[in-house]
Amino acid sequence: MEKFYEVVEGIQDLHTDVKKEAQNRMDSLIKPLGSLGKLETIAIQLAGITGKVKNSIQKKCMIVMAADNGVCEEGVSACPQDITTMQTINMLNGKTGISVLAKQAQADLTVVDIGVKKEIYHPNLIVRKIKYETENMSKGPAMTREEAISAIEVGIETVAELVKQGYNLIGTGEMGIGNTSTSSAILMCFTDCDVETAVGKGAGLTDDAYENKKRVIQRAIEINQPNKEDAVDVLAKVGGLDIAGLVGCYLGAAYYRVPIVIDGFISCAAALTAYQIQPLVKEYMIPSHSSAEPGFKKMMSALGLAPMLDMDMRLGEGTGAALAMPLVEAAAAVMNNMATFDEVTMEDDFLVDIR
Amino acid sequence: MEKFYEVVEGIQDLHTDVKKEAQNRMDSLIKPLGSLGKLETIAIQLAGITGKVKNSIQKKCMIVMAADNGVCEEGVSACPQDITTMQTINMLNGKTGISVLAKQAQADLTVVDIGVKKEIYHPNLIVRKIKYETENMSKGPAMTREEAISAIEVGIETVAELVKQGYNLIGTGEMGIGNTSTSSAILMCFTDCDVETAVGKGAGLTDDAYENKKRVIQRAIEINQPNKEDAVDVLAKVGGLDIAGLVGCYLGAAYYRVPIVIDGFISCAAALTAYQIQPLVKEYMIPSHSSAEPGFKKMMSALGLAPMLDMDMRLGEGTGAALAMPLVEAAAAVMNNMATFDEVTMEDDFLVDIR
Repeated sequence: MEKFYEVVEGIQDLHTDVKKEAQNRMDSLIKPLGSLGKLETIAIQLAGITGKVKNSIQKKCMIVMAADNGVCEEGVSACPQDITTMQTINMLNGKTGISVLAKQAQADLTVVDIGVKKEIYHPNLIVRKIKYETENMSKGPAMTREEAISAIEVGIETVAELVKQGYNLIGTGEMGIGNTSTSSAILMCFTDCDVETAVGKGAGLTDDAYENKKRVIQRAIEINQPNKEDAVDVLAKVGGLDIAGLVGCYLGAAYYRVPIVIDGFISCAAALTAYQIQPLVKEYMIPSHSSAEPGFKKMMSALGLAPMLDMDMRLGEGTGAALAMPLVEAAAAVMNNMATFDEVTMEDDFLVDIR
Repeated sequence: MEKFYEVVEGIQDLHTDVKKEAQNRMDSLIKPLGSLGKLETIAIQLAGITGKVKNSIQKKCMIVMAADNGVCEEGVSACPQDITTMQTINMLNGKTGISVLAKQAQADLTVVDIGVKKEIYHPNLIVRKIKYETENMSKGPAMTREEAISAIEVGIETVAELVKQGYNLIGTGEMGIGNTSTSSAILMCFTDCDVETAVGKGAGLTDDAYENKKRVIQRAIEINQPNKEDAVDVLAKVGGLDIAGLVGCYLGAAYYRVPIVIDGFISCAAALTAYQIQPLVKEYMIPSHSSAEPGFKKMMSALGLAPMLDMDMRLGEGTGAALAMPLVEAAAAVMNNMATFDEVTMEDDFLVDIR
């Protein structure tokens, strides 16, 4: 519990002076002012995070938090719950979407079992189980406040370890059948939006199952009465261990001053929760893609962020965040390698023969 | 002239049988059906283009067509016309946005002088000048039909040469002060949209200059009366040599069966023109980013395509296309490297201990 409070209180704002210096350099590059849009914003954000105008991404890592959700017994997902276990194994074996897309982005992959229902033995898995799946949130709290904070601390420690190993760009992902339900519940608590806005069909529900999913989520909120002024209360009562772990990743990234890329709907629910705990974490976040889940837009606007990629993707696992990593590297390259107007004036005149 | 007709008539449809085979493999991968959205579409498109289900991008090249536009004497641009020459040189020297972003995407850069007003001597420049800038389209045709077709052939030959060298992913870009005006004129001709929809403020016009730009474009259309049923007539009368060169790139890419990534507003005007000449070229095109130019959406919808990136970029040069190249490679990686459900069933059961 101490680690959590230490990190939340220790998070600081970006270096505003270095950001200003970075903005000045960006505005001196040979292009119309602002014409590289979000690449400029990211390059300046990186400067504010690291305290250096020029940055380069040395090592990248995708973190996947895997956990099961007790609410699955209410039939909220089109997938059998065992998929959490199976896909976690497939992921570790390099076979899933995020395995392939992380590799493609030249990012390593850290998979953390923070609450999968079954035991998984795999040499590459980091086992930090807080419990074997959460409780069914439609009948009571998904977890205790202590469990939620312990799960957050797992995320913080995961980032701490990666930073120690030299990683300076982190992406978030998850595996956990039922986690669109927990994410929708979190969204409803923090934004007071209605169930139609917050809840989607996940990986492919029938109309009946969709109606059921909405009822289950509403019941979870009614029964638990989460206090939206206390983000950890919301997380514990209607969240999940995967989401709690990711909340810790965002807090850890801000504390250790590394940029962190948000994936889709579930990663964004965690980002929103982290933001409610400590608003400064937002300064360290980089959005990636626009999830096809209907509540996603509402989440992004609650965070005041806008995604860069519109790929009609809805796989999760961190796939959208992995796709966005090269964009972050491109932003750094613009700052580092484009010439300024001063640098190009005159020097190339010999090449031009005025007709 | 013969080359042009040979290519237009020689363009064939995608291999529909291989596309179907690719769709089947995509649907067998361990993810919910369709959950990788546009990555799936691109992977299947690549199969249709090459005739192979699994593809890998071997060599990438950005093509930048550079040319001046006579209409600049009407004050349609916020930039002095000399910028075309200066930026072409800066580009060749590795200093501009596209130089940096092409390198970041590990793509080579081919810069073609297809009509810059001044002479540029640079070892890396391909000089294929059709003329020293176009005529002022607000007073008469920008070029003759023969000049337009010759410029298209330069684009075709540029792609032919790259394909011979083993490039199998091409991106389009341009440099030419005044080319948002020619692009807007082309858009108005093909879609009959009004001037407010088609014309933006380019790299940063004042309100007065913006009103002038709209008047100049309207005058160009009134004076020249381009025949929208004859795309080469539109291109010759109110287009530019940079756009004509890019039209040739799209036609060439389709003829030689390589995927080609569309950049922003100007590249998209060329894509629309190529599509009017030969609708099958669309099957070989991959959209990249959403340009901040107001007419861009209209162009995309005329092509029936949707961009992947929303970066608020408006630099041109091919910068958006370069950013999208890793997405095309990611699409190929998904098809090649994700496992199918059949492949993962059973084999990993030993890892799971059911509680």
